[in-house]
Amino acid sequence: MGSYDVVDLIRAKRDGRRLSDAEIDWLIPAYTDGRLGDEQMAALAMAIVFRGLDDAELATWTQAMIATGERMDFSTLSRPVVDKHSTGGVGDMITLPLAPIVAACGAAVPQLSGRGLGHTGGTLDKLESIPGWRAELAPDAMLRLLDEVGAVICAAGPGLAPADKKLYALRDVTGTVESIPLIASSIMSKKIAEGTPALVLDVKTGSGAFMRERSDAEQLARTMVGLGTAAGVRTVALVTAMDAPLGRAAGNAIEVAQAIDVLSGGGPADVVELTLTLARTMLAVAGVDADPANALASGKAMETWRAMIRGQGGDPDAPLPTATHTKVIEAPRDGVLTRLDALAVGVAAWRLGAGRARKEDPVQAAAGVTWTAGVGDGVEAGQPLFTLHTDTPDRFERAEQALAGGWTIGDEPASSGPLVLSRID
Amino acid sequence: MGSYDVVDLIRAKRDGRRLSDAEIDWLIPAYTDGRLGDEQMAALAMAIVFRGLDDAELATWTQAMIATGERMDFSTLSRPVVDKHSTGGVGDMITLPLAPIVAACGAAVPQLSGRGLGHTGGTLDKLESIPGWRAELAPDAMLRLLDEVGAVICAAGPGLAPADKKLYALRDVTGTVESIPLIASSIMSKKIAEGTPALVLDVKTGSGAFMRERSDAEQLARTMVGLGTAAGVRTVALVTAMDAPLGRAAGNAIEVAQAIDVLSGGGPADVVELTLTLARTMLAVAGVDADPANALASGKAMETWRAMIRGQGGDPDAPLPTATHTKVIEAPRDGVLTRLDALAVGVAAWRLGAGRARKEDPVQAAAGVTWTAGVGDGVEAGQPLFTLHTDTPDRFERAEQALAGGWTIGDEPASSGPLVLSRID
Repeated sequence: MGSYDVVDLIRAKRDGRRLSDAEIDWLIPAYTDGRLGDEQMAALAMAIVFRGLDDAELATWTQAMIATGERMDFSTLSRPVVDKHSTGGVGDMITLPLAPIVAACGAAVPQLSGRGLGHTGGTLDKLESIPGWRAELAPDAMLRLLDEVGAVICAAGPGLAPADKKLYALRDVTGTVESIPLIASSIMSKKIAEGTPALVLDVKTGSGAFMRERSDAEQLARTMVGLGTAAGVRTVALVTAMDAPLGRAAGNAIEVAQAIDVLSGGGPADVVELTLTLARTMLAVAGVDADPANALASGKAMETWRAMIRGQGGDPDAPLPTATHTKVIEAPRDGVLTRLDALAVGVAAWRLGAGRARKEDPVQAAAGVTWTAGVGDGVEAGQPLFTLHTDTPDRFERAEQALAGGWTIGDEPASSGPLVLSRID
Repeated sequence: MGSYDVVDLIRAKRDGRRLSDAEIDWLIPAYTDGRLGDEQMAALAMAIVFRGLDDAELATWTQAMIATGERMDFSTLSRPVVDKHSTGGVGDMITLPLAPIVAACGAAVPQLSGRGLGHTGGTLDKLESIPGWRAELAPDAMLRLLDEVGAVICAAGPGLAPADKKLYALRDVTGTVESIPLIASSIMSKKIAEGTPALVLDVKTGSGAFMRERSDAEQLARTMVGLGTAAGVRTVALVTAMDAPLGRAAGNAIEVAQAIDVLSGGGPADVVELTLTLARTMLAVAGVDADPANALASGKAMETWRAMIRGQGGDPDAPLPTATHTKVIEAPRDGVLTRLDALAVGVAAWRLGAGRARKEDPVQAAAGVTWTAGVGDGVEAGQPLFTLHTDTPDRFERAEQALAGGWTIGDEPASSGPLVLSRID
């Protein structure tokens, strides 16, 4: 493998020339081990924001990131393996009921998840509100749980695609996150390295999502499906709406409580609908012929949830933490909730302590926002509409500022629109 | 002055929004003192390569770079002050005869110069081939020489626009040099901080110049004239041709020898023409009514040169160093030199040791290329056409490779075209 002049490669991409396989195969490990400086990769990433990467460059870039780390192997499991990834939304606790439902149907669901940054929460942060539950799991314990229980939601080890970890941290501070090929290679390098043979992607679009525009979300979905398929992973993407928040809660423990409602046969209709749609899609790509609604109705999904939580040290019967302070916002008039903005709710929950501004910040387990009506529901003057939860009441004011203007009560009937916008195979 | 989220500012420029005065006034000192990381400035610089800076942003950016350092003051001098800057070309030793000619006409010429990097040489490197001559000069010694002799060519102190020094070094390793607003602000921040009331810019274009395309060179010239004028500096730019190298030498001591030829009333016609054109332009913007050709013919310019060299410790009578090894390339046939490529000659001189690849490298005083014919001149088979000079003969081979294909002997008459392409006020 040759060596290259970094500045020549940056200038090539800047001027719209494509990078060769050999150049990319040199660049990525050179960045990972420090031969290429952060300032050079930052300039290259910004050039990629403007110039993009074509399909062949992107496939090579992704494989080069995978090659900097370990690969996992689920081939010894007796169950068919299928994974799911969401690009993140407000109130998006779908993984919590979804993994045990799909496992209860006979598949193995290895959910290597992350912690939240910004206004969309992290799955691990939510589960850590369960007393005793630990995100860290040794590889052999993970494989045993996957075989016996069928579902594991745990922290990704540092060994998967370390180039991505370093590059993502750099992009976060250099304004270079917003690049479809860089986002796609970041997500897919970890999923491909993880070794899942089947994958369902939930690509969110709307005010509360990272991809505001549906056309961008669809392009990201197509790009990731292409990368997965090329790497031998059966990959399907659903593009789903994130204009309004999902369900009735945005936070950590309050989203876990909602997941338990769903597993008990209740829960908000939109969460149940999206959970079952994703479950059917996952079972189909995994080749498992089973109806996830049965797993829910029979109580098998709830049994799997309890075993999954216990398998990682958690007590499924322990009461979840509640906030020391709450504040209720009442509906100011009779009418219909015609608009509820996901970003406003997400930022309010974040400011109450549910999320973190820096990755080393702690989160409050009990903080967040719950609400009593979804878009299209009738409300009465004086009805509690939102409840703000926090252990640090000095945060109420800024949370209320975030929420103000994020919802509308009108007189006309309203509808929330379809949840699943498109499917990309 | 407020504080800003760096990532928001990078994203703003990336997305084509302009930066406000307050944002730029925060950014530049924040980068200079390290609150903003190199990786962040690299991403911003790449975004500027794509998005540019408008006239108001650029003026603020330049003033903010000036404000990070000292300003000089020539207002105590009894002579009218005028400076000149060239964007760099092969064989461009024009400053050497020009400064004493203009000084001999009554102006003061403070030439704060740099060392060369890459295939175009640095004025200080050339003068350092004169035994005893020193580039460093204390500010009071500089002012005294300017008053008494009228010309000083010395190293810029570290105090002028330190933000530019740091930013230029970063741009050099991140593929972000090629941006007209960033080039213009880099040059003009130093010239404005230097405090000259009048300035003539020689913006080169062609194969041997940084700006290959004439339209880019003219845009750079207009941008710099705009910045200078806005800062109260009477500024004129000449856009001049750099397809063929200037004169008959590219190196250090060999270019000094050529300058002495010009001051003695000889020298290559193109060098004499460009020197006198620039001298007339400088005298006009300085408001001095004198003919530089008289200063040359009378010997006053040579007297000034000798005083200038002595004033910085040099011995104008000492023999210049000569290379320990030379190699002659003969004309292979009779004909006319129809093409001589500046870049090929510049790279050959650089490889022989006249220039440096890294700024900490030394240069060889005697290394370089001399040639006996310009474009349009007739040559005879066997005539010495090029002489390669070096103290390290293992470099001949790579220098010859650089020169090969860089010149053509044909049968038709040829002309070198005009030297001054346009003038921008």
